[in-house]
Amino acid sequence: MRVSRDNSLSGAGEFGMIARITARMPQGETSLLGPGDDAAVVSAPDGRVVACTDAMVEGRHFRRDWCEAADIGHRAAAANLADVAAMGATPTALLVALCAPPDTPLDWAEELAEGLAEEAALVGASVVGGDTTSSPLLMISVTALGDLAGRAPVTRSGAQAGDTIALAGRLGFAAAGYTVLSRGFRTPKLLVDAYRRPVVPYPAGPLAAVAGATSMIDVSDGLLGDLGHIAAASNVRLDVHRDAFDVPGQMRDAAMALGCDVHHWILAGGDDHAFAATFPASVELPIGWTAIGRVHPAVGTPEVTVDGRTWKGPVGWDHFTKDHNSRYPHAS
Amino acid sequence: MRVSRDNSLSGAGEFGMIARITARMPQGETSLLGPGDDAAVVSAPDGRVVACTDAMVEGRHFRRDWCEAADIGHRAAAANLADVAAMGATPTALLVALCAPPDTPLDWAEELAEGLAEEAALVGASVVGGDTTSSPLLMISVTALGDLAGRAPVTRSGAQAGDTIALAGRLGFAAAGYTVLSRGFRTPKLLVDAYRRPVVPYPAGPLAAVAGATSMIDVSDGLLGDLGHIAAASNVRLDVHRDAFDVPGQMRDAAMALGCDVHHWILAGGDDHAFAATFPASVELPIGWTAIGRVHPAVGTPEVTVDGRTWKGPVGWDHFTKDHNSRYPHAS
Repeated sequence: MRVSRDNSLSGAGEFGMIARITARMPQGETSLLGPGDDAAVVSAPDGRVVACTDAMVEGRHFRRDWCEAADIGHRAAAANLADVAAMGATPTALLVALCAPPDTPLDWAEELAEGLAEEAALVGASVVGGDTTSSPLLMISVTALGDLAGRAPVTRSGAQAGDTIALAGRLGFAAAGYTVLSRGFRTPKLLVDAYRRPVVPYPAGPLAAVAGATSMIDVSDGLLGDLGHIAAASNVRLDVHRDAFDVPGQMRDAAMALGCDVHHWILAGGDDHAFAATFPASVELPIGWTAIGRVHPAVGTPEVTVDGRTWKGPVGWDHFTKDHNSRYPHAS
Repeated sequence: MRVSRDNSLSGAGEFGMIARITARMPQGETSLLGPGDDAAVVSAPDGRVVACTDAMVEGRHFRRDWCEAADIGHRAAAANLADVAAMGATPTALLVALCAPPDTPLDWAEELAEGLAEEAALVGASVVGGDTTSSPLLMISVTALGDLAGRAPVTRSGAQAGDTIALAGRLGFAAAGYTVLSRGFRTPKLLVDAYRRPVVPYPAGPLAAVAGATSMIDVSDGLLGDLGHIAAASNVRLDVHRDAFDVPGQMRDAAMALGCDVHHWILAGGDDHAFAATFPASVELPIGWTAIGRVHPAVGTPEVTVDGRTWKGPVGWDHFTKDHNSRYPHAS
């Protein structure tokens, strides 16, 4: 290992940095061979492995002046762990590719690693490997793996007319927090913290699978947009009840103060990583799940409606056709 | 799906682009659920899964004026598939995160996807999932998964004094090709093509594991540097015989013409993705493997020597302390 010449990634060198970062990544039971070799080995007791990947780019998905390094680690991990849980699986491992400018402080990278490892530990997963390379732009790409424990994956294509649409987790909090930050405020803390570190109801994913959910999705880009994927894959109409959502007082107050529509945040805001699923009407919803609507036969094109009508507002986020400032409705 | 407004990623929109790209990614037997849901499902018959990730950044790891999109896909896939094979495993799946400027031609992204899928297909693996996001800078992060078929992973830490050091695959070709390109030439084709698309001896990885290799590594950053990882992890001295390497006539001629030392390319050039391994002296080397040296007890610090002596030239590549033009010795 090289001796650090200064407190930056280039000062520590690739292998010095890797040593510093991996020291922040304790290996849990699912990690059979952790960082330090050509590849990691992760247990896959089910004989299948669930896998997804998601990248975050500075200026587009996060800003270092709005989030601490640990927050960014939590968010990057959460985005992927939530995708695994939304298949009904339990996350087992993360792999992380970090592309960072050479002058990035080593402390920053260590805190990022800690955030990633802490979020993974919430579900018993470990950061088992990764890659670091210098880049003019900071980018973090995370892959999550998970285990289905013998169950079928819960996909987007199984929703049936008559099913109950249900939600686990929070909606609109991250969008509200983003709007608050984008207007130059730093409070209410509830909302700003929700943007910085999503609170993901991970166990609700496998619980839904066990209970017999017919479809499920991680709400990452906005509820209506993401339900649209279920509608399209299942060829149904999903009707959401606008009054089914709790609107916390602080969110309502913030919307009033900022001139925003709180239901735009709830119905179209991303990044909270709630789970939306459909269940047969006969099923008692598992703990943590609340009914928010009903599945109907598609009339022509599959679609999502709100109280029976086409929604006129924004539905979500497209990563190529919108710019950073339109990631959240009415953000700036 | 949106209708494409122009032939770029932003014109097609995120979901239109994903549809176009995934159409280029046939799903093989190991893919139980391919692209299109929150996560993929991949078979892991061994009950364990090998996993690694590797990112490539434009200007640092590739140049669009030197490589076609398909070449870049092949290279990005190969870098990860080789890491899986170097554990003694057979690759099963790739996941790809593509961060690309909105004006990236859709055709380019499709050709990249084809290159990734074609390289994966060489080993029976599929591109099962991924993520696309816009970014000012083009970056590709790939994760590879693999199956050990009941064998122990071959790590870097098992080399024993007395073992034979052996090599499978080519060395110095990519470094020579890079040097040729960086001087403004486009021939010899043998070398330039080797830089653009590595020829990786994938089956040699599992074959070495079956034969009883005690350690193995993917040579991605330079033979001497990468053998240094085995030396350190195994606490041994690895002695390489300089005359053990075939030097093709075209490489020798190119080195002469460009004023380079051909052994710098061979001993310190990266990106060919050869495999280096150690085998007990009693083992007959498997097909495709050639002896290049011997393992000795470490005298003090673990090290790599060439014909018994400390090597004075470059040994490899550090992703944070060197700049692009020094990726290969004597490149420009």
